Amino acid sequence: MVLRIGYLGPRGSFTEEAMEVYTKGINIYEKVEFSTISGLIYAVGTKINEAVVPFENSIEGSVNVTLDILIHESKAMIKGELVLPINHHLLAKKAYPLEKIERVYSHPQALYQCRRFLNEKMPGAVLRETESTAEAAMIVSKTDRPYAAIGKKDLSTLYNLVLLSENIQDYKENFTRFIILSDNDSMPTGCDRTSLVFATENKPGSLYRILGLFARENLNLTKIESRPSRRALGEYVFLLEVEGHRQDEVLKKVLGEVEKNATFFKILGSYPRWRESYPPFPGGRADASQTCLKHEAEGFS
Amino acid sequence: MVLRIGYLGPRGSFTEEAMEVYTKGINIYEKVEFSTISGLIYAVGTKINEAVVPFENSIEGSVNVTLDILIHESKAMIKGELVLPINHHLLAKKAYPLEKIERVYSHPQALYQCRRFLNEKMPGAVLRETESTAEAAMIVSKTDRPYAAIGKKDLSTLYNLVLLSENIQDYKENFTRFIILSDNDSMPTGCDRTSLVFATENKPGSLYRILGLFARENLNLTKIESRPSRRALGEYVFLLEVEGHRQDEVLKKVLGEVEKNATFFKILGSYPRWRESYPPFPGGRADASQTCLKHEAEGFS
Repeated sequence: MVLRIGYLGPRGSFTEEAMEVYTKGINIYEKVEFSTISGLIYAVGTKINEAVVPFENSIEGSVNVTLDILIHESKAMIKGELVLPINHHLLAKKAYPLEKIERVYSHPQALYQCRRFLNEKMPGAVLRETESTAEAAMIVSKTDRPYAAIGKKDLSTLYNLVLLSENIQDYKENFTRFIILSDNDSMPTGCDRTSLVFATENKPGSLYRILGLFARENLNLTKIESRPSRRALGEYVFLLEVEGHRQDEVLKKVLGEVEKNATFFKILGSYPRWRESYPPFPGGRADASQTCLKHEAEGFS
Repeated sequence: MVLRIGYLGPRGSFTEEAMEVYTKGINIYEKVEFSTISGLIYAVGTKINEAVVPFENSIEGSVNVTLDILIHESKAMIKGELVLPINHHLLAKKAYPLEKIERVYSHPQALYQCRRFLNEKMPGAVLRETESTAEAAMIVSKTDRPYAAIGKKDLSTLYNLVLLSENIQDYKENFTRFIILSDNDSMPTGCDRTSLVFATENKPGSLYRILGLFARENLNLTKIESRPSRRALGEYVFLLEVEGHRQDEVLKKVLGEVEKNATFFKILGSYPRWRESYPPFPGGRADASQTCLKHEAEGFS
């Protein structure tokens, strides 16, 4: 049976690029395009075997819809991660001068990430939000008005557009981390990360005590995030990411203790860490045979 | 001079409602409408004296743009908070049957919060995102197509619309917390909250140690949130909220220690806690003369 991999479309999206990086070395697979993140995640295990989903961006933070569906609504597990640099460019059908552009279309995050550029160079343009950067390019390719889209370079080829301005994002250090979802997570490689979510009693010191379970064993946390419990304002579910695999002896013991002290507990998955991501580096998938490099073994715990 | 208070418009928005609750008892003030959260926050101290800004919702979590501007770009301080219940209703120009509705307009958060209702009752309708629920009502009021808007009840009067369906949000416990921004925060009342942001060295245990400074003094944390540092993926700035006022003896000492151990530190403000908010209750502003109630003195710290 052919592996079916879902991604957030349309063609030319950053998630499609992430999927292409992920599938290097997989000879036969079928790409399945989805138009929403929720539809994509719900389909894991039924319409598709795996999904490539955006998880967090270095400017915008976590993709809340991804996180909330994994916490509350899905049984899919994280089996991998990958990190891509994000560069935004201004594209249009013709080489219009910037001051003539009447509208700029893009995904809200892309518009936000280019806010300073837009304010300074084209203060008169009206901003219009789209589902994706690729949808923006598609709209612009079909009009004869002086409209522009923000997105990645490949869109100019895909939609026959001219590059008006390159690398227009306000922060040059702009990376997005994607996760690979599947029915199961991955086997230990010696350089892994584990993502889990939990809730605690609404009592003083309960979060501190749980973080202490990790600190006592010198386990490095690489991410902590709070999301609403959806039961009451001020009640949270926490996402933690920690170095190591859930089958590692020490981490396994700590996770057992966390579960005992939590009112809600769910492991989202253990998976190989993207090797060149901190700091990022162009290159292929994690080499599972290597051990972790020293500079990667850091966290704020 | 007349107090100028800014809010996120247009007329009929939830933020306008929050402003009206906040200004009960203020006799003379001038309302100033803004169309974006960023414009509203930037104007504090210049075009306006105070701003009423959405801060977090019990389903969606923090309003990231508010948080990011307070962390990175603004000197405004939090001088107050208030909590409103959020109820969504379906509105249209005529009493169309639900299955005839071709499009539903609303703010993305409102569309998301009514997702189950929309999927079940009107799966054929196309969803269109707007800047605000009020903008959605305005669009629907100007068309002769069978379009509907999601928003609060008052919009039916303001825009002459019919209520097609009431309380359509998926989660009934839906509250939004607003903050009041100004040049300065508030004086101690005996029942206060303090919001601060900080970053730590990227070393194991550094967040745990800072949380320990609060735990050691039995200071209750009521919110923790991580936001990207915007320098590198995996580097965060943390928002903490703690019971007490920054001028209280113990909290003052702890905040001094946090500042010493942080690579970045900023107090967003100390302000009276919204009295009836956990659990929420209809009613006026915090009564500064009362001490905190027992059930409010909880947190996860």
